[in-house]
Amino acid sequence: MKEHAVVQFDCAGTASGKMRNDLRVTMSRPFAEGPWDLATDEGAFHGGEASAPPPLALFVGGLTGCLMTQIRAFAKRLDVPLTDLRVETRVQWDWTAKGRVYETAPKGFEIDVLLDSPAPRDRVAALIEAAKRGCFIEQTLGRQNTIRHRLRTQEGWVDV
Amino acid sequence: MKEHAVVQFDCAGTASGKMRNDLRVTMSRPFAEGPWDLATDEGAFHGGEASAPPPLALFVGGLTGCLMTQIRAFAKRLDVPLTDLRVETRVQWDWTAKGRVYETAPKGFEIDVLLDSPAPRDRVAALIEAAKRGCFIEQTLGRQNTIRHRLRTQEGWVDV
Repeated sequence: MKEHAVVQFDCAGTASGKMRNDLRVTMSRPFAEGPWDLATDEGAFHGGEASAPPPLALFVGGLTGCLMTQIRAFAKRLDVPLTDLRVETRVQWDWTAKGRVYETAPKGFEIDVLLDSPAPRDRVAALIEAAKRGCFIEQTLGRQNTIRHRLRTQEGWVDV
Repeated sequence: MKEHAVVQFDCAGTASGKMRNDLRVTMSRPFAEGPWDLATDEGAFHGGEASAPPPLALFVGGLTGCLMTQIRAFAKRLDVPLTDLRVETRVQWDWTAKGRVYETAPKGFEIDVLLDSPAPRDRVAALIEAAKRGCFIEQTLGRQNTIRHRLRTQEGWVDV
């Protein structure tokens, strides 16, 4: 890879079953990888059939896996040997009823890192700091992002 | 559920293989669901063995599935019949080399909604707007979140 690159992931989701979504994910930049076929569903409480994890499970798993991947990838580059690595993540959201629907908001993110390394504490802390900055998902959560939505209509795509 | 609730998801990740992470996700609030066993890995380019999707695939799949779930759940509540629903998501990040490691930053989020409904356009647009506000992941990405990190040491947990 060069000094700078754009990384792009695409997902095509199709509603199936009662609340199940079949999700085909591919990496399209800087080179093609995948596809990876994933799925989400909901439990009976939300009208689903529990045939796959809920979307938030993928989200929290992706966040945890992303930081763990960066810690291991950067451990080699920063000469911090690791003999064991576990991470425990807790994410909370507020849920508020609003008329016939409801609204949500993030409430808290906590990530506990458990690792064994002969390196001194400051080197381990520097590794975690580098991993935070290299973790795509953590960096995304640390910013206020704008998501563009479009709806397909008979007259073409319209922003919604 | 009451008028307000806290929703919490937990993930326990264990590094295994070369770059693989085994991830056990559970919902702990407002009631217990799961566990769901997920995994991430990387391809050969990143030193992995491609035994599971990369973390970003789970993230983009979770985002897409979350919005789709809200659209379907709220379609019933807002009387917007849906006969078909597909969503296409594209997420871009900037990747920049920095010394021995690298840094990342979100660059763009685009979500295209393809659905069939006999409801008028303004009702469909209102449904999508409600789904955005009810989508846990979309609301999370729209805020600047702070993630607390702790490292386990022989003297107990320390913030890092």
